[in-house]
Amino acid sequence: MDTWDAIRSRRNVRQFDQRTIPAADLDRVLEAGRIAPSSRNWQPWDFVAVTERDQLVRLAEVWRGGAHIARAAAAVALIGPVPEDDRQRGWLFFDVGQAAMLMQVVAADLGIGSSHSAVGDQDLAREILGHPEDRTCIAIFSLGYPADRPLAPIERFNRRPFGEVVHRGRW
Amino acid sequence: MDTWDAIRSRRNVRQFDQRTIPAADLDRVLEAGRIAPSSRNWQPWDFVAVTERDQLVRLAEVWRGGAHIARAAAAVALIGPVPEDDRQRGWLFFDVGQAAMLMQVVAADLGIGSSHSAVGDQDLAREILGHPEDRTCIAIFSLGYPADRPLAPIERFNRRPFGEVVHRGRW
Repeated sequence: MDTWDAIRSRRNVRQFDQRTIPAADLDRVLEAGRIAPSSRNWQPWDFVAVTERDQLVRLAEVWRGGAHIARAAAAVALIGPVPEDDRQRGWLFFDVGQAAMLMQVVAADLGIGSSHSAVGDQDLAREILGHPEDRTCIAIFSLGYPADRPLAPIERFNRRPFGEVVHRGRW
Repeated sequence: MDTWDAIRSRRNVRQFDQRTIPAADLDRVLEAGRIAPSSRNWQPWDFVAVTERDQLVRLAEVWRGGAHIARAAAAVALIGPVPEDDRQRGWLFFDVGQAAMLMQVVAADLGIGSSHSAVGDQDLAREILGHPEDRTCIAIFSLGYPADRPLAPIERFNRRPFGEVVHRGRW
């Protein structure tokens, strides 16, 4: 798909149909995260890809807003080091946000919807995902084909107006 | 351009040729940031687009690693609220990272290279960009056409191996 169309097709999908994601497509999504840029190329991320229904249902419990994970075809948990200080915390989240975005654009390009979840219960996330004590689960996103209608470029986004967000030269 | 090609074409470009970026292309880059997803759609960002050479040269001084900004055709400063706590700081950086990534993918799709800069001297950034005291400049990225060779899909990335980064089911 054309890049601009894929970017405008990405939307939060929380109701999925029953189709599984072909392994090659899920791998392409993960590959997009792997090749993401990061500060001094530190690549602070590990990705845990979950596709088993039982595990998805359990994973949905890590945050009150994570119910969509239980219904998804797959989920990707974004794992990173426990940050040492505010500065590292900032870049960790910035860079993992970049990787998450690339993965979700590639998913949209393949017709796959996605939705973010925060992680409230870190202990439960660790129990389910098995990452070591020096790592934390920063966020999770679910993946699957939309139950309502296929992804297609959105013409009008629910966002602040361009002229309010964009400043020319100076604020 | 095809989405997967655009994503694999994005690379850090720090030497630019002298061409300016057509206004419509710069606006499309900014629009990609505007429509980015964010936690509960809070859209914490403002973007200051800088294209005047004098201002770019000054902006390059905000961080020791920002010299590429002085040579760029344009720069986009990513502005957000001064975070209230660690949790908000995390989501702010995550979401601004997402917006930055969308903008840089769209830039790559248009043949425009980009490179990140951190912001060390916040006072200088504020003097140059004019954002209010309750906002902070999270990062800046430069934009321009590569001086060396046009962007093209990269076959081998300098990244950790797929099998190390990706875990199936459990870490």
